Amino acid sequence: MRHLLNPLDFSVEETNELLTLASDIEHNLKKYAHVCDGKKLATLFYEPSTRTRLSFESAMLSLGGSVLGFSSANSSSAAKGESVADTIRMISCYADIAAMRHPKEGSALVASMHSQIPVINAGDGGHQHPTQTLTDLMTIRSLKGRLDNLTIGLCGDLKFGRTVHSLINAMVRYPNVRFVLISPDELKVPEYIREDVLRAKGIEFKEVSNLDAAIPELDILYMTRVQKERFFNEEDYIRLKDSYILDKAKMDLAKEDMYVLHPLPRVNEISTEVDDDPRAAYFRQAQYGVYVRMALIMTLLEVEKPC
Amino acid sequence: MRHLLNPLDFSVEETNELLTLASDIEHNLKKYAHVCDGKKLATLFYEPSTRTRLSFESAMLSLGGSVLGFSSANSSSAAKGESVADTIRMISCYADIAAMRHPKEGSALVASMHSQIPVINAGDGGHQHPTQTLTDLMTIRSLKGRLDNLTIGLCGDLKFGRTVHSLINAMVRYPNVRFVLISPDELKVPEYIREDVLRAKGIEFKEVSNLDAAIPELDILYMTRVQKERFFNEEDYIRLKDSYILDKAKMDLAKEDMYVLHPLPRVNEISTEVDDDPRAAYFRQAQYGVYVRMALIMTLLEVEKPC
Amino acid sequence: MRHLLNPLDFSVEETNELLTLASDIEHNLKKYAHVCDGKKLATLFYEPSTRTRLSFESAMLSLGGSVLGFSSANSSSAAKGESVADTIRMISCYADIAAMRHPKEGSALVASMHSQIPVINAGDGGHQHPTQTLTDLMTIRSLKGRLDNLTIGLCGDLKFGRTVHSLINAMVRYPNVRFVLISPDELKVPEYIREDVLRAKGIEFKEVSNLDAAIPELDILYMTRVQKERFFNEEDYIRLKDSYILDKAKMDLAKEDMYVLHPLPRVNEISTEVDDDPRAAYFRQAQYGVYVRMALIMTLLEVEKPC
Repeated sequence: MRHLLNPLDFSVEETNELLTLASDIEHNLKKYAHVCDGKKLATLFYEPSTRTRLSFESAMLSLGGSVLGFSSANSSSAAKGESVADTIRMISCYADIAAMRHPKEGSALVASMHSQIPVINAGDGGHQHPTQTLTDLMTIRSLKGRLDNLTIGLCGDLKFGRTVHSLINAMVRYPNVRFVLISPDELKVPEYIREDVLRAKGIEFKEVSNLDAAIPELDILYMTRVQKERFFNEEDYIRLKDSYILDKAKMDLAKEDMYVLHPLPRVNEISTEVDDDPRAAYFRQAQYGVYVRMALIMTLLEVEKPC
Repeated sequence: MRHLLNPLDFSVEETNELLTLASDIEHNLKKYAHVCDGKKLATLFYEPSTRTRLSFESAMLSLGGSVLGFSSANSSSAAKGESVADTIRMISCYADIAAMRHPKEGSALVASMHSQIPVINAGDGGHQHPTQTLTDLMTIRSLKGRLDNLTIGLCGDLKFGRTVHSLINAMVRYPNVRFVLISPDELKVPEYIREDVLRAKGIEFKEVSNLDAAIPELDILYMTRVQKERFFNEEDYIRLKDSYILDKAKMDLAKEDMYVLHPLPRVNEISTEVDDDPRAAYFRQAQYGVYVRMALIMTLLEVEKPC
Repeated sequence: MRHLLNPLDFSVEETNELLTLASDIEHNLKKYAHVCDGKKLATLFYEPSTRTRLSFESAMLSLGGSVLGFSSANSSSAAKGESVADTIRMISCYADIAAMRHPKEGSALVASMHSQIPVINAGDGGHQHPTQTLTDLMTIRSLKGRLDNLTIGLCGDLKFGRTVHSLINAMVRYPNVRFVLISPDELKVPEYIREDVLRAKGIEFKEVSNLDAAIPELDILYMTRVQKERFFNEEDYIRLKDSYILDKAKMDLAKEDMYVLHPLPRVNEISTEVDDDPRAAYFRQAQYGVYVRMALIMTLLEVEKPC
C-alpha cells in the first residue's frame, strides 16, 4: 500500500505516468465516471481549506466514488483528545482512502504509519502540500507541453512559501530548467534551497528584486502572496508590496506564451485586469488540480485504467 | 447559460413550465432518479441555513447527482480574504451548478458574472430568496389548483419580511389576485410595495391590523414571524404579538379550504395545536420546496425531461 | 414504522436477527452495495461526534444510499430557535431515515413522535446510545461466537459511563452472563443498576477495585475512560488513575482468548503498547459498528435482504 506524503514520493517516471493519466482523464472524462464506484474518500481537515477539500471531493465524485469527513478540527474527535494515530485507524474502517490536512508538521506521516488505507497529505502545517505541486506540474506540462527546457520565475514570498519550495524541488528533476527568483531581500528563498538544492545540483538560477526587469525572459511566472505579517515594519511592506503586484503593464513586458500561475487564493498580488489575459492560467490551474487528484486517487487505490 | 438570481427572472410562462415540471416530479419521482447522474451541485453557504441547504442537497441527490460545498463562512476560503468572484471561478472547476447563500446583497449577481456554471441565489442578505418564492407558488398552485382568482392574506412582519415582498411581486402577475395585508402599524409593507407594485398595477388590496376580522375571506394565509427586535419598545411587542399568533380559535373562523403557509422556521406565531389541521400546509410546503428545486436544477442544467 | 431509541427496543430475537444480518454483511459486503440505492440518510448532529456520524455515513454509503445533514448545532436551524419537532418534520421531507445526536435527554423520543421517517437515536445526552450497544454486542458475538456463558469485566468509570449501563442492560438478557465490575469506590455502578437490574434478575456479579486481580477470569474486558472531572480532588485522581490503565503487563495476566473492547476515543486508559496484541479488539469494534449500522438502516427501512 502506498501513500503520498511528500512531493518527491513519486519518481520522475511515476510522476510522468500520473500526469499522463491526469491528461487522459481531462480529455476523456466520461470514461472515468465509474472507476471508483463504491469507493469512499475520507476528507480529514483539521484546519479549514475549502479549495483543497472541495478539489478532492470533486475528484472522487467525478470518479463515481463518494465522500465523508470533517472540515474543521472542532467538529472532529480531536476535540476529545484523540490522537491522529487512533483517528486514522478508525477512518480505515470507514473509508478506502483518506486526504488529511493538519496544522502540525509530520501529521500525515504519523497517520500513514497507522493507517490501513492510503493517506494523501493535503497539507501539514508549513511543511508539505504535494497535491499542489502535482497540480503545478500538470498545469505547466499541459500549457507548455513539457517540463524541461523552461525558465521559471517565482515571485513574491519565497522565504515562507511552501508551494514555491516544493515546486523548485520538483522541477530540478527535469533537464535544463532555469529559475528566476523574484522577491524583496527580506523574503528570499531559504539557505537550504539556495545551497542544498540549487547550487548542489548545479541548477542555473538568479535572485532579483525587480519583477519588471525579470518578466521578459520567463516561460512561466509563478506568483505568490506577500503577507503583511512577514515584514518587520509597515513601511517596508508598503514600500515593497506594489512592486510585486502583477498588472496589465507588467504583462505587456512578458512573452506571448508565458503563463501565469498562482496557488490561490490571491488577495491583490494579481490585479483582476489580468484575469482576461489568455496567459492568466491560475483558474485553469484549479481545474488541472481536479484531474491530477483523480489520477492520484486512482493510482493509490490501484484502480484499473478503463479502456 | 442561465442563472436564478431574482424571483422574477422567469417569465410567467417559464414559471408555469417549471411548476408543471415540479408537479410531474412530485407524482413520478422514480422517473427522475437518474437524470442528473454524474452532475455535481456546490452548496456555497456563507451563512448557515440548514433548511435551504438541505432542501437543495435533497433535491440534487433525488435526481441522482451529488453534492459538495460548505455550510458556513468560517470553513470557507472567504476567511482567507478571497473574493466571491474568485471563489465562483474555482467552484466552476469543481461542480456543474451552484446554490449560494451570502449575507451581502448582490453577492449572487457578482458570482453569476464570473461563473462558468449556473448560479442559484439561495438568499443574499435581506434581498432576494427566489427558490422560497417558487416554493410558495408551487404550494399554492398544488393546493388550490391555480395561481389566479385568489384572496391572499399576508400576516405578521410585512415591513422587513423578504419572502412576503417577493411573493407579492410574483403573485401580481396572475389575474384577479387580491391581497389582505395583516400587520401592526409598525410593520406594514414598505411604500414601494404599496405604491409601485400594488397601486401602480391596479391590484386590489387592503391593509388591516386584525387577523380575526380578516381571516374569513382568505383562500391562502401566509404567516410570518414577528421579531421582537423589530419593535421600538417591549410594551408594543407584548401588546401586539398575541394578535398575530394563529391558533385553533382563529382557524375556526377560516374557510374550509383556506391553506396556511409559513416559510419556516416558526417560533411561536403558529400554535402547535394547528399542526394537525388539514389546512396547515407549512410542512407540505417544505416538501414542495424539494420538488421545485429539483425542477429548477434540471431546468438550469438543461437536462432532458425523461419520458 | 419503527425507530431505534433505546438499546432494548429490539427483543432478544430481533437483536439476534439484526446481528446475523450484520454478520452476513461483513462477509458478503458487495452483495449489499446497492440495496439502498436512491435512499437518503439525514445525520442530525446537534453536538459533534465525528466517530458516530462518520460510522453512520460510511454505513449508508456502503449500502448505495446517500447522506445529507449537519455536524453541529451552530450550523443548524436550532440556532434560529426551531424545535426538534419542527426540524424532524422538515427533515422527513428531505430524507428517508435520520440519525440524531442531541445533548438533551429525550430529544430522539420527541423527534420520533413527530417524524414521518425512522429515527435512530445516535446519543441523547448522558442517556442512551443504542447503536454503540449494538456495536458492542456484535463485537462480542463475532469474537467469542456467542453472547451467553461469558464473564464480562467492565472497568473504569462505571458510575457515569452510559455505554457501560446499556451494555449491562443488554447482556443480562442472555443466559449465564457474569459481570466483574472494576472501578474505584467513587465510580461504582449506580444503585439502580446494582439493585434493579443485577440483583433483581439474579445475575452473578462482583464489584472489585483491582484490575490486576480481576483480569485472569475474564472473557471480555470492556475498558472506559476515567475522567479527571469526576473526582472530588486531584490526589484521588492521581492515586487511582494508574490502576486502571491497561498495559502489556496486565495483558499478560489475561486469558489467551480474552478480548479488550473500548467505545473510543481513548485517551490513555489503554497503553498504545497493547494495540498490537491480537486480543486488542477496539479498532475492529469500529469496523463492526459500520456493519451493525448497515444492518440497522436496512431493517428500519424494511429493505429486502438480497439473495
